[in-house]
Amino acid sequence: MAEPFAAVDVIRAKRDGGRLTDAQVDWVVDAYTRGVVAEEQMAALAMAILLRGMDGDETARWTRAMIDSGERLHIDVGRPTADKHSTGGVGDKITLVLAPLVAACGAAVPQLSGRGLGHTGGTLDKLEAIPGWRAELSTAEMIAQLDDVGAVVAAASAALAPADRKLYALRDVTATVESIPLIASSIMSKKIAAGPRSLVLDVKVGSGAFMKTRPDAVELAHTMIGIGRAHGVATAAVLTDMSRPLGLTAGNAVEVAEAVEVLRGGGPPDVVELTLVLAREMLALAGITGVDPAEVLASGEVYRTWQAMIRAQGGDPDAPLPRPAHRHVVEAEADGVLAELDALAVGMAAWRLGAGRSAPGEPVQHAAGVRLLARQGDEVRKGQPLAELHTDTADAVPAAVAALADGVRIAATAEAPGPLVLDVLR
Amino acid sequence: MAEPFAAVDVIRAKRDGGRLTDAQVDWVVDAYTRGVVAEEQMAALAMAILLRGMDGDETARWTRAMIDSGERLHIDVGRPTADKHSTGGVGDKITLVLAPLVAACGAAVPQLSGRGLGHTGGTLDKLEAIPGWRAELSTAEMIAQLDDVGAVVAAASAALAPADRKLYALRDVTATVESIPLIASSIMSKKIAAGPRSLVLDVKVGSGAFMKTRPDAVELAHTMIGIGRAHGVATAAVLTDMSRPLGLTAGNAVEVAEAVEVLRGGGPPDVVELTLVLAREMLALAGITGVDPAEVLASGEVYRTWQAMIRAQGGDPDAPLPRPAHRHVVEAEADGVLAELDALAVGMAAWRLGAGRSAPGEPVQHAAGVRLLARQGDEVRKGQPLAELHTDTADAVPAAVAALADGVRIAATAEAPGPLVLDVLR
Repeated sequence: MAEPFAAVDVIRAKRDGGRLTDAQVDWVVDAYTRGVVAEEQMAALAMAILLRGMDGDETARWTRAMIDSGERLHIDVGRPTADKHSTGGVGDKITLVLAPLVAACGAAVPQLSGRGLGHTGGTLDKLEAIPGWRAELSTAEMIAQLDDVGAVVAAASAALAPADRKLYALRDVTATVESIPLIASSIMSKKIAAGPRSLVLDVKVGSGAFMKTRPDAVELAHTMIGIGRAHGVATAAVLTDMSRPLGLTAGNAVEVAEAVEVLRGGGPPDVVELTLVLAREMLALAGITGVDPAEVLASGEVYRTWQAMIRAQGGDPDAPLPRPAHRHVVEAEADGVLAELDALAVGMAAWRLGAGRSAPGEPVQHAAGVRLLARQGDEVRKGQPLAELHTDTADAVPAAVAALADGVRIAATAEAPGPLVLDVLR
Repeated sequence: MAEPFAAVDVIRAKRDGGRLTDAQVDWVVDAYTRGVVAEEQMAALAMAILLRGMDGDETARWTRAMIDSGERLHIDVGRPTADKHSTGGVGDKITLVLAPLVAACGAAVPQLSGRGLGHTGGTLDKLEAIPGWRAELSTAEMIAQLDDVGAVVAAASAALAPADRKLYALRDVTATVESIPLIASSIMSKKIAAGPRSLVLDVKVGSGAFMKTRPDAVELAHTMIGIGRAHGVATAAVLTDMSRPLGLTAGNAVEVAEAVEVLRGGGPPDVVELTLVLAREMLALAGITGVDPAEVLASGEVYRTWQAMIRAQGGDPDAPLPRPAHRHVVEAEADGVLAELDALAVGMAAWRLGAGRSAPGEPVQHAAGVRLLARQGDEVRKGQPLAELHTDTADAVPAAVAALADGVRIAATAEAPGPLVLDVLR
C-alpha cells in the first residue's frame, strides 16, 4: 500500500512550527505503530513537538490516533463507570481506598494502573505486597469483577493504546518525556481506551511530583480535561500538593497497611481528606447523587468491598503483610520544629530501600519503604525517632538515610503546612 | 567500559538550550559511531541542535569529533596542498577545470568529491561519463597521482569521518538536514580529514543552491571558515550566485565537454571567471605567488595536466563522450527577451532526463543533461531553440520539458544579470 505521507515531511512541518493536520497525525501515529515510521523519525518528531508544541485540537487528535492503535473497552455493567488517575507522587495509596469507596457508593470503578519507576511508587507494586494478589486480568475477568464487586484495580492490557507503549519507551531514552501535550496524550489515551464515562485526574504539583510548578500542573490539567471532553468523557482535575508525602508511609506493604487503616475508619487525615475530595468529584461526574462518601467510609461497608476486591484477584486481605528483614530508625539531630519533610527525599529513600525500581521490569521489595513518625510542623527533641526505614537489603540503608537527610530540616519555627487540595478544575 | 555520560542527559542539555561541553561532544559523536548512542537518540539530538543551534566553538568541536571518528590523511608531496569545496549547484563543472589549473600553477590538489542527489550534480558522476575513468582510488594511488600529476579527483574513502556518513544518512530521513552547524561540520569534517593545508569554499546562494538566501549562505560560510581556522586549515569562502546555472550545460557528458572547452581556452565566460577567482584564492592561501592562472589557462599546459589526470585514473581523455539516444529541442514560445532561466528548473530538468538520482546508489545516465542555447538577457524569437535535452529514456522528456518551462520566462524587457561572484569572505 502506498503511504499517503512521507515521514520527513510531517517532521519538517512540526519542526518549522506548523500545525499537523488531522490526516498527518492519524497517519504518523498509525505508521509508527506499524513500523513504517522508524524509531529515529518518531524521535525527531517528538523532539520537534516538545520544542514547538501542539495545540489543543492537535493534542486531542494525537490522543485519538493512539487510542485507535489498539482495542477500546466497552464496559456496560448497569452502573455508571467512574475512573481516576493520579499523575504520581510519594505515598499515594489513594486508589486502594478510593476504588472500593466509590464502588460502595454505587459506581463501577475500573482502575487500570501501572507500576512505579524511580521515586514514585506504582499502585500495582503496592497491591502485590498482599499475598496471592495478581494484577493481570483478562478483559472478561475484569468485567465480571466489576459486575460482582464494583471495583477492580488491574494492569492495563497491552492491547490498549499500543502506540503509547511504544512511544513512551522511545521518549524515555530520547529526552522527550517532558512535553505537556505528549504527557497528556499518553495518560489520556490509556485511560480513554479503558472506556470510562467519567474521569477525575489528581494532578500533583511539587518536589515529589512530575510537575514541579503550579503553572505546569495547571497546563497539564487543562490539556487533559480538553482531551477528555473531545472524546466524550466527563473529566475534572483536582490539583494537589506533592511537596510533602501523602500520609505517613511510602513504599509497598507499609502503604497497604496505611490504606487498610483508612478503610477501617482511621488513618492519616490527609489521606482521608484527599480520598473524600476525589470520591465526591467522581460521584458527581458519574451522576450519582444523594450519597455521602464520608458516611459510607464510616459505615464499614467499604472495608468489605476492599476484601471482596482483593479476594477476587487471588489475594488474602486477612493475611499478614510481608515484614522487612531490616529496620533502621532515623532520629532527630536537634531540638526544634520539623520545618521540612520533603516528598522527593522520602520517595528517594523508599526507592533506595528497594521499594521502587530503576528500570522497567525490575523486581521490587514488597516489604521495603519508609514509615514517618513525625510530620511537618511537629515539635521534636534531639534523638526522637523521625522515621523507620524498612528493607530486605541492609546495605541499602546508608544511601536511604542520606537521601532522607536531604529533605529533613529542623528549625526554631516552621510555617504551617499549606492546603493539600490546591484547586479543582472542571 | 563504563560510559562517562548518558545520552539522555546530553540530549536534554541541548534541548533546554544549553551548550554542550567538549567532553559531551566528543563522547556523543564517538558513542554514536560505536552504536552506543542509538539512532533515535542521535535523531532527537540532531533535532534539538537544529532548533537550538550550536555556537562556533561547539561546532568546531563537533567537527573535530567527527574527524576523530576515522582516519586523517597526511599528504606530503613536496608542494603546498590546496583544496576547494562547492556547496553544490546546477552546471557546476568548476572542479574539472580548477584541479588541473591549480596543479599546473604549482599546488597539489587533492579533490575528494561526492556524487549527486536530486537536482544538484556530482563531480564524480560527471567524470564517470569519460570512458574508463574510475573514481575509487586507494590512498597510496591518490598520493602517487598527486606527486606525479599534481591533481586528483576521487571518491572520499569510507575511512574518512565515518561518523559523518552515518549522521548524514540519519539527518536525511529525520528532517534534520537544514541546520547550519550540522551542514558546516559535515562538509568540513570530510574536507579536513583529507588533510589539506588550505581550503577555498564556493558557497552558492539562490534557487539552484542549498542556501536560498544570502544571509543563510553568509552564515554557513562564516561557520565553515571558523571550523577551518580552528583546525589550522587556511580557509576562505567565495559567495557565488546560483539563481542561474553555471555555464550552458547541466548533466554529465555535456558538462565534461564544456569543461574541456574551457581547458582548451574557450568555453562560457562565467565558467572561466569563477574558475579564475577560485584559482587565485587557492593559490593565495597555499602561498604560491607570481603565477597568473589566466596565463596558465591560456598556455595549453592545463589541458595536458587534465589529460594526465584522466589517464592516471584509467580514463581516455581523447575518446568520444557518450551520446544520448534521444535529443529534444525546447523552443521559445514567444518573441521577447529571455528574462529568466532559473537554475533550479534547469537542474530539475537534467535530473528528470536521468542525469541525477533520487536515492543514493542509483545509477545515472552518462549522456543525460541539458544544453542551453540561450542565456538570460538574450533576445529570442518565437520558435527559436532555447535548450537541447539529452536522454536515453524518451519517456522522461515530457517531465523534463515541464520542469524547464517552470523556470523560463520571456518578457518585453529583462534586467541585466547580477554579478556571479557576490563576495569573498576570508
